[in-house]
Amino acid sequence: MKRVAILGSTGSIGQQSLDVIRAMPDAVQVVALAGGRNLNLLEQQIREFRPLLFSSSVQTDEHEGSEFASMEVIAGHPDVDFVIVATSGKAGLGPTLAALRAGKTVAIASKEVLVMAGEIILREAERHQARILPIDSEHSAIWQCLQGEQNEPRRIILTASGGPFYRYSPPQLDQITPEQALRHPVWKMGSKVTIDSATLMNKGLEVIEAHWLFSLPFASIQILIHPQSIVHSMVEFADGSLKAQLGPPDMRLPIQYALSYPNRWLNPCFPRLDWSEVRDLNFEPVDCGRFPCLNSAIEAGKAGGTYPAVLCAADEVAVDLFLSHGIGFCDIGRVVQEALQQHHSISQPSIEQILGADEWARECALNSSLVRTTEREQPRDSWRGS
Amino acid sequence: MKRVAILGSTGSIGQQSLDVIRAMPDAVQVVALAGGRNLNLLEQQIREFRPLLFSSSVQTDEHEGSEFASMEVIAGHPDVDFVIVATSGKAGLGPTLAALRAGKTVAIASKEVLVMAGEIILREAERHQARILPIDSEHSAIWQCLQGEQNEPRRIILTASGGPFYRYSPPQLDQITPEQALRHPVWKMGSKVTIDSATLMNKGLEVIEAHWLFSLPFASIQILIHPQSIVHSMVEFADGSLKAQLGPPDMRLPIQYALSYPNRWLNPCFPRLDWSEVRDLNFEPVDCGRFPCLNSAIEAGKAGGTYPAVLCAADEVAVDLFLSHGIGFCDIGRVVQEALQQHHSISQPSIEQILGADEWARECALNSSLVRTTEREQPRDSWRGS
Repeated sequence: MKRVAILGSTGSIGQQSLDVIRAMPDAVQVVALAGGRNLNLLEQQIREFRPLLFSSSVQTDEHEGSEFASMEVIAGHPDVDFVIVATSGKAGLGPTLAALRAGKTVAIASKEVLVMAGEIILREAERHQARILPIDSEHSAIWQCLQGEQNEPRRIILTASGGPFYRYSPPQLDQITPEQALRHPVWKMGSKVTIDSATLMNKGLEVIEAHWLFSLPFASIQILIHPQSIVHSMVEFADGSLKAQLGPPDMRLPIQYALSYPNRWLNPCFPRLDWSEVRDLNFEPVDCGRFPCLNSAIEAGKAGGTYPAVLCAADEVAVDLFLSHGIGFCDIGRVVQEALQQHHSISQPSIEQILGADEWARECALNSSLVRTTEREQPRDSWRGS
Repeated sequence: MKRVAILGSTGSIGQQSLDVIRAMPDAVQVVALAGGRNLNLLEQQIREFRPLLFSSSVQTDEHEGSEFASMEVIAGHPDVDFVIVATSGKAGLGPTLAALRAGKTVAIASKEVLVMAGEIILREAERHQARILPIDSEHSAIWQCLQGEQNEPRRIILTASGGPFYRYSPPQLDQITPEQALRHPVWKMGSKVTIDSATLMNKGLEVIEAHWLFSLPFASIQILIHPQSIVHSMVEFADGSLKAQLGPPDMRLPIQYALSYPNRWLNPCFPRLDWSEVRDLNFEPVDCGRFPCLNSAIEAGKAGGTYPAVLCAADEVAVDLFLSHGIGFCDIGRVVQEALQQHHSISQPSIEQILGADEWARECALNSSLVRTTEREQPRDSWRGS
């Protein structure tokens, strides 16, 4: 019986984690739930799963048998074995460190945790002999492909659907509305991740995450556009052999794999790949030049220090601004790039320095994007020819 | 240092095994070579590798430092650790049993060994704690995908290029010449395997082989047509996750994997998959009805007893007859089917009974095919419309 805490239980990954657990009542017990702003849903989850502990960013009712606690306390609680970190933004950073320091197994769905503080996270995991497991479909795919292999992979290949706008021209990209961008063709995800998928920032964050999770240099991490999202990622070994992990695009599968590892559970609710429908799998090398967010992310990852924290924070602000019609789709990349250019990075930063860089970048992005908004109201006909 | 015997060193797999070993002089030592009718090549190999032992089906020169021995003696010799069985037809049966009884690791490229006598082979391997490793690209792919997995696969999916004639109509199939059939679009193989690929008999034999190698019922073994031969096979697990093994179509890779297992060796001679060239991977469920050899093989495998031995022997005779223009391409399947229909199978046969069925089937196929040859000289215009 795995005793699980879900941090971010009301988000997309949190809800899908509870879906998995609902189907596996004999294998997993929900010991703690931590939700965000969707209080109604959190209350409902508490009533259904009756966790020992719960946490919320807003005031909640009292629940008989469930005690309120901070996410850090939950993450390190002796009755918790396994912590799913599915919070948004930097919120997962502190609880992840608390969980690792208490020797818990941490399944990470929140990209920012490793992107912002990969070095510290890995050091603490090693020091306390705590395991970090991936939940992202790409990283889960790589992890699955690495099972039983004795040698380091030669390279890993992250697949990317390319998002809904991969074939758009620059003028077309500039016209994208939040409503269009929120309609992802394949994956069911939260709005921040959906926009990050459309800008390919999401893939850039995954590259940095993979760098830490699998201890690989950036040169050994490649991206292939694969519109069908059936091959979730691949690993190439020294001998030229590759392994790929495939499956229907359903986040519940990597969530369950993290819970069931090293075993696999038969889950009657899961879809199966139907090969009479999946006839063509297409691949093409990614065109980094067309998606500046991807480039910025990889450069920030290579530069290290507090750059990745700035990347995350500036992107979060820029995506929020885009969603509230404050800036255009292409401005997201520009806002991020400006913040990175203006930043003075600190190498081997402490958590406090990382959080300081995050604060600075939010401020910087807000200012930068305000300027962009004004600019955007002027005609841009000179662009059309590009 | 692995001390290796190669049985069938002058065949396609044998030569490619020596290619691999040439690149890995510090890891593998050739202790014994056994060749077939290509005496010139065998003599050349003996001069190059100076094996302790050699074997040949024809009279050879004496070689200083190399002693003549039968394949059975080689397979069980104390200086041999690892036996590659790459003989053709039933020739590998006796030596494989000798190797297993001496506790050697046996890498099997010869399909007939497991198809004809899978039950006996597995029993002897278990009794003497000897390992059987696959060399076929499909079975190697499945084996690679199973590494590190704790649970039984839900099913395995053997990919099949479909051969050069997969889209041919029945009248077109009937007109295929040996010269056309020997030009396989992807794989470099011996002539028997090339024809078996075109009739899909090869895939049928692989299904039976997979049944034994991975202890799976026939219902859990599926076939997908995949013309590019990049995905060499796949495994589906209980949770719906699939793993695939991919690579350039080059037999040296699975040969080396068997030798390097559980490690992988960097081999500078090996090609690498270039994703700027591999853009589309296509899959479709196999249409068994159009390729009677595939059906016959699966039925023979399910029926068991001496049926699989009859399948192999009748097919070998039929392919020979086709290559010498004695029968037409479509007659191969008919000859095999006739032999199976006329056969009285023995259940749980001994090796002697299996070899008896082999003899009987050869006779039967030769007679049957003679009739077919006469028939074939008559005009067949009535077929055109089908």
